[in-house]
This record gives sequence, structure tokens and C-alpha cells, in this order.
Amino acid sequence: MLNKLVIIGVGLIGGSFALALREAGLVREIVGVGRSLENLSAALGTYVIDSASQNAAQAVQGADLVLLAVPVGQMGATMAAIAPHLGPTTVISDVGSTKQDVVALAKQYLAENLPRFVPGHPIAGAETSGVKAARGDLFRERNVVLTPLAETDPAAQALLTSLWQGCGAKVSQMTPQQHDAVFAAVSHLPHVLAFALVDYIATQPNAEQLFSFAASGFRDFTRIAGSSPEMWRDICLANRDALLQQIGGYEQELARIKALIAAGDGAGLAALFGHARDARQSYLKNI
Amino acid sequence: MLNKLVIIGVGLIGGSFALALREAGLVREIVGVGRSLENLSAALGTYVIDSASQNAAQAVQGADLVLLAVPVGQMGATMAAIAPHLGPTTVISDVGSTKQDVVALAKQYLAENLPRFVPGHPIAGAETSGVKAARGDLFRERNVVLTPLAETDPAAQALLTSLWQGCGAKVSQMTPQQHDAVFAAVSHLPHVLAFALVDYIATQPNAEQLFSFAASGFRDFTRIAGSSPEMWRDICLANRDALLQQIGGYEQELARIKALIAAGDGAGLAALFGHARDARQSYLKNI
Repeated sequence: MLNKLVIIGVGLIGGSFALALREAGLVREIVGVGRSLENLSAALGTYVIDSASQNAAQAVQGADLVLLAVPVGQMGATMAAIAPHLGPTTVISDVGSTKQDVVALAKQYLAENLPRFVPGHPIAGAETSGVKAARGDLFRERNVVLTPLAETDPAAQALLTSLWQGCGAKVSQMTPQQHDAVFAAVSHLPHVLAFALVDYIATQPNAEQLFSFAASGFRDFTRIAGSSPEMWRDICLANRDALLQQIGGYEQELARIKALIAAGDGAGLAALFGHARDARQSYLKNI
Repeated sequence: MLNKLVIIGVGLIGGSFALALREAGLVREIVGVGRSLENLSAALGTYVIDSASQNAAQAVQGADLVLLAVPVGQMGATMAAIAPHLGPTTVISDVGSTKQDVVALAKQYLAENLPRFVPGHPIAGAETSGVKAARGDLFRERNVVLTPLAETDPAAQALLTSLWQGCGAKVSQMTPQQHDAVFAAVSHLPHVLAFALVDYIATQPNAEQLFSFAASGFRDFTRIAGSSPEMWRDICLANRDALLQQIGGYEQELARIKALIAAGDGAGLAALFGHARDARQSYLKNI
């Protein structure tokens, strides 16, 4: 049971973490920190948090756990603001979509607290955002990846593991490097490909005609191109090297298919498409 | 009102056309033709068709309309089989996903009936297939593209237009060339990209780990990679030139994004992603 949980950035993820822990009876007091009074009022009004503050430095005092749920672009400044005010037993975690960059910031700004910093990433993609979309079951059966450092206190890691499990999540562990490589492939690459397709179609002279004949397959394929441009700019830059490597690998795959089509190699195409379909079917069975 | 409709290939599309026309009261007798007795029995059992035949040449005699709803790979043979048995007023149409290749086959095999051949393509993508998935409302509010030839009798085209409208569809007209260029961009290209992504991930050494962390965005993005490998092999080969051109254009777009990421050009990335998101939002408003 946490006595005091401080969530900095009470949006979809931070708010859902609060709701899930409260429903599980794992927290006594939840303090929400943010810059927007409107958003904090909404979080108070929906009982996601017990109290609100615009002053992170003040709010974190006496906290058992501080969850950093701000956009990656605000992570360094937030760490710098709270570092001098963190108690000797306060555990800190985050929910950033990339981990090597957050770890680098933590080494810079949370050096004294590093043993109690547990980098994390809940995999709960959603097109919606903001605290009004928060749900206590958002993380149920979802993956949460923790990427502890050599310095991480096992007790701090165990705390985060048990809290996320209390939210219904499946918790696993990777190095920050492994994490960023995995998500470059299965998340960042598909987002780039979807943004690329929509931008490509939208810049054609007959874009309006093209969109008017796009069917449900196109709509689903491009759903993730409805995501926040700013968030995905940040992710692309934060995970630049791993993402560039994945785009390069994908380009080779596409060139291979192009060559099969150009050569009229029907057997090769059917084999490749069949391999993809089978792989997707067995992946669907396992989720 | 059609007296006799013959549907060759009673699957999802052919079966749904039959159901929709029957519900609209636009047809008296529906004959289903196929090679599989099991499938024909299912079509009879669900009252999709009134009678079944494995002999296309016999079945088409006295038909007002013959709908060719067979896979593209069987189109030529089917046309050749029925051509000598078509009456002087029988209208013929098809539902193929590509049109230039079907038109070329029609010129070869249906030369004497060409004025009464109306090439068509209902845009009703579905992962499901087979007559058991047929639904009378499958085409409601969906696009159907007719690609008449210079030789096409306006009365034959008008018949198909009114029948598809009777199914609830929005009917439009393009040349076969325009059709194939449009669908290379908004359908064939996304399918290739989705197959490519799944095959690419599936061939990584840590494929199992990668799939286990793929979330809902990945699942939606790759939904169309669950489609029939044989059908998409045929489409890729039938529409080879237009598709290769679209893949080439997409490769340039992807190279542009890669360069922005490599250069750390956050403003350029946010602008491109924002353009894509806005274009997608206004396209969603219009469907």
C-alpha cells in the first residue's frame, strides 16, 4: 500500500494508473501535478486524484512514489525540478515510449536518486488522450516493460512490478537498449510507415479522388497515422538509431517484393504473402 | 426486374450481390455456378441461389445477366467456356479487383459480346470469404466502380448501374487505366506494405519476442496482411506496372522521412506527421 503517490502529468496514462491503483486498493493518497488548471480540475472532478498542484517540487515531498507521465520533451526539466526535493526513500518511475533517452536524462538529473529510479513503459496505445479518457482497466492484460539499470535497487523494481501487476498488467524486463530495439520494430516503424502512406497519398494531384475510394483496409492500416505528430516527432528523434536501422531493413524487404513483382514471380509472391499471413495468424493466437 | 441472373463463383461477393438483389426485389431467378458442390449446397441451403449448376455453359443459356465472380486466375477460362452459349441480349459483368487485365481477357474471349460486357469492381473489402459470409447489406454505402469500354452499350451499363444502386451502392465510372492507378495507390500498395511488415518482422531472429510486444496499433496496421496470399499474388501481377510505380513513389516518401530523422529535423517531422494526420481526419469525415 502506497501512502502517497504523486503523478506528474495526469493524462490518459497517468490518470489510468491512478484509477487502477485506487480500484485495487493499493494507494491511500494521490496527488496530481500539471501545468493546466483545466486538466487538473477535470482530474479532481472525476476523482482520479485527491489533490492537485502546479508545483512539482513541493508536491513530491514525502512521496512514496513519483510517476513521471509527462511528454518526453518535458522529462529533463521535470527531473531537474524535483531532484532536490525527493526524499531518501522515494521511488521514481516513468512511462516514456523510449527508454535510452530517459535513462540518459535520469543519469544527468537524478544522479543521487538513480538506485530508486525504475524506467518503465506501459504498452497501452490509444488514439485518445487526456485524463477524461482515463480508465481503471486500461492496463489489464497489457504489457509493461521495466528497464532497470545496474544501479537500480531491487526493492524499487519489485515495488513497480507489484503495482503494475496490481493494475492487471503483464510485467517484463529488458535493458533500455533491448526495449528501444524491440519497439523501433513493432511500434515506431509501423507508425512511420502509416504516416508515410497518408502523406504520400495526400500529396498526389488527385488526392481527393484517391481518398474517396479508400476502403476499410486503408482506414485500419492508417489508424495510427491519427496519432499526435509532436509525440511521434519526439519518439523518432529519441530512438533515432534503432529506428533508422529498422526503416533500412524494411526498405530491403520492400525492394525484395518489388523485384518479385517486376519479375512476375507469382510463386515467390504467394510464398512471401503466405508466410506473412501465417505469422500474423499465430501471433494473433498468442495475444 | 431480371428474369434470370447467373452468378459464376458464389462466394462472399457473388453471394452478397444475389442476396441484395433479392431483398430489393430486382430478380426473379438466381442460378449459382461453381466447382465445389459443398459451396453450392451451402448457397442453396441459405437461399442465396434458387438452383445450382457445375456447368457454366449450360447455366448461362437464357440469362439476362451473367456475373463473373471467380478469382482473376479463372476469368479467362470461364469467359471461354460461356462465350458460345451467351444469348444476343445477355449482359455480362465481373467483380475483379483489377480491370485492365479483365478487359484484355474480355476482348480476347468475349469479342462478340463486348458491347454487352460491363467491367465492374465493388469495393467491399472483407477478411472473410465464402458464401457463408455473404450479406445482403455488404454493398450498402460502398463504392462500385464500372469501367465501360468504347464499345459498351449504354443500356448494358445502365442496367449494371441500376442493379448496384439497388444494392445500396454508390456507382461511379472510370477508365480501366484510371481504376487500376487509383487502386494501386489506395488498396494494392497498402496490402503490399502490410505483408512486407509482417514478413520483415517474422524473419527477424527474435521474431517471437517482437510479436509478443506488438500492440493494437500493429494489429490494425497489419489486418490486411491476413488476406488471401493467392488473391494478392494475382492482383500484384495483374496490376504490375501501376503498382510498381506506386511502390516507387512510396519508397521516395520513406527516404524523405528517413532523411528528416537522420538529420534530427524535428520541425520537418512534425510538419509531415501533422499533414498526414490532418489529411486522414478530413478523409474520415467524408466517408
